Amino acid sequence: MFEFLDIIGTFVFAISGALTGWHKKLDLFGVFIIAFVTALGGGTLRDVLIGRTPVGWMEDLTYVYIIGFGFFTTIVLRTKLEKLRISLFLFDTIGLGIFTIIGIEKGIAIGLHPIICIVLGTITASFGGVIRDILCNEIPIIFRKEIYATVSISGGI
Amino acid sequence: MFEFLDIIGTFVFAISGALTGWHKKLDLFGVFIIAFVTALGGGTLRDVLIGRTPVGWMEDLTYVYIIGFGFFTTIVLRTKLEKLRISLFLFDTIGLGIFTIIGIEKGIAIGLHPIICIVLGTITASFGGVIRDILCNEIPIIFRKEIYATVSISGGI
Amino acid sequence: MFEFLDIIGTFVFAISGALTGWHKKLDLFGVFIIAFVTALGGGTLRDVLIGRTPVGWMEDLTYVYIIGFGFFTTIVLRTKLEKLRISLFLFDTIGLGIFTIIGIEKGIAIGLHPIICIVLGTITASFGGVIRDILCNEIPIIFRKEIYATVSISGGI
Repeated sequence: MFEFLDIIGTFVFAISGALTGWHKKLDLFGVFIIAFVTALGGGTLRDVLIGRTPVGWMEDLTYVYIIGFGFFTTIVLRTKLEKLRISLFLFDTIGLGIFTIIGIEKGIAIGLHPIICIVLGTITASFGGVIRDILCNEIPIIFRKEIYATVSISGGI
Repeated sequence: MFEFLDIIGTFVFAISGALTGWHKKLDLFGVFIIAFVTALGGGTLRDVLIGRTPVGWMEDLTYVYIIGFGFFTTIVLRTKLEKLRISLFLFDTIGLGIFTIIGIEKGIAIGLHPIICIVLGTITASFGGVIRDILCNEIPIIFRKEIYATVSISGGI
Repeated sequence: MFEFLDIIGTFVFAISGALTGWHKKLDLFGVFIIAFVTALGGGTLRDVLIGRTPVGWMEDLTYVYIIGFGFFTTIVLRTKLEKLRISLFLFDTIGLGIFTIIGIEKGIAIGLHPIICIVLGTITASFGGVIRDILCNEIPIIFRKEIYATVSISGGI
């Protein structure tokens, strides 16, 4: 169940990243990289902070394939995806909730204090979007829209 | 003694981060995150680079409490803190000195070369402010004000 | 042979970083830091992601010396280096190729899947320049110039 949700979250974040890169008029390599870091940035930072290395996606190609699939989906369907913007925001929100829970699970698994687990869940969920915005030279959207914070923290609780 | 200084440094950097976030008109969640990364960013990067994981603040809630305290202090007293700007800069400078020394200690403890220890101390002291400025979409202040560099390196020597 | 190439790559990236910092009118400390992170950022991230800590440059002072040498070379010869811009771009390209190969080697050494090794090589080669551009508050050049991507990925293949 968690694995299925993880795949959904990765896929949606990859699309979110690819769309952002596209709007910034990056080249295709840049768009792919933004999709990659948006989808995997949070989990990667989480793994590094708790010392779970090599980080998760290095030992399971599934993630790379999903991101590639999300990337091509975005390139091909970007006009339709634009219209679905509100729905995408919905998926993004679901992704945040999922990734928060997964991050908390990982923290519990190594015996961290519940408060630290919530912090870890929030990092897992939000850092991908933060690094996406940093790379695109914007102040991270998560710091400017109340909704993200609310979703991520309450997803944790 | 070191622990006491560490607490002072964390507290002052949390205030410094929260004030910066406030000026950037971030929402409260954003202000808290900036306080958090400013206070813990340097030590976190240091721990990750030397392989001391899970990183320090994950195993000791004290840091999170201090940052929460610094965050609320900033929200409540921000008008008064503005007037204390020069004093805050003084505290910030003290914080840099303290964190440099702590970073060097950690490097010595695992047997690194003295030059590397100074680099590690400088990373510990300055990276929190660097990541704060990156998140707020500014060129890090440490690269533009000679004073920071001087304090941090001479604190190390 | 690899070690010699590694030294060349580090030296050229240090010059590339120092020149960028100089153009951004950073102070000397800032210029040095940009040289440092441009030269070592990619390898550092690679080592952290695969759990090879303390990261490479902490256990071998050679890298710090090379960067110091590149830094002073840039300060002294910057007018001449400006004229060599195209040649520098050539060296930069060579550096990207070298670092990609070194990154791939490290991945193979710990038994990662070939696709992941290429990703790791690309990270090693490009992240130094990415962090340089982030610190200088620019959208990373690698996302905007097709050439970098082509060089790095094909260097890997």
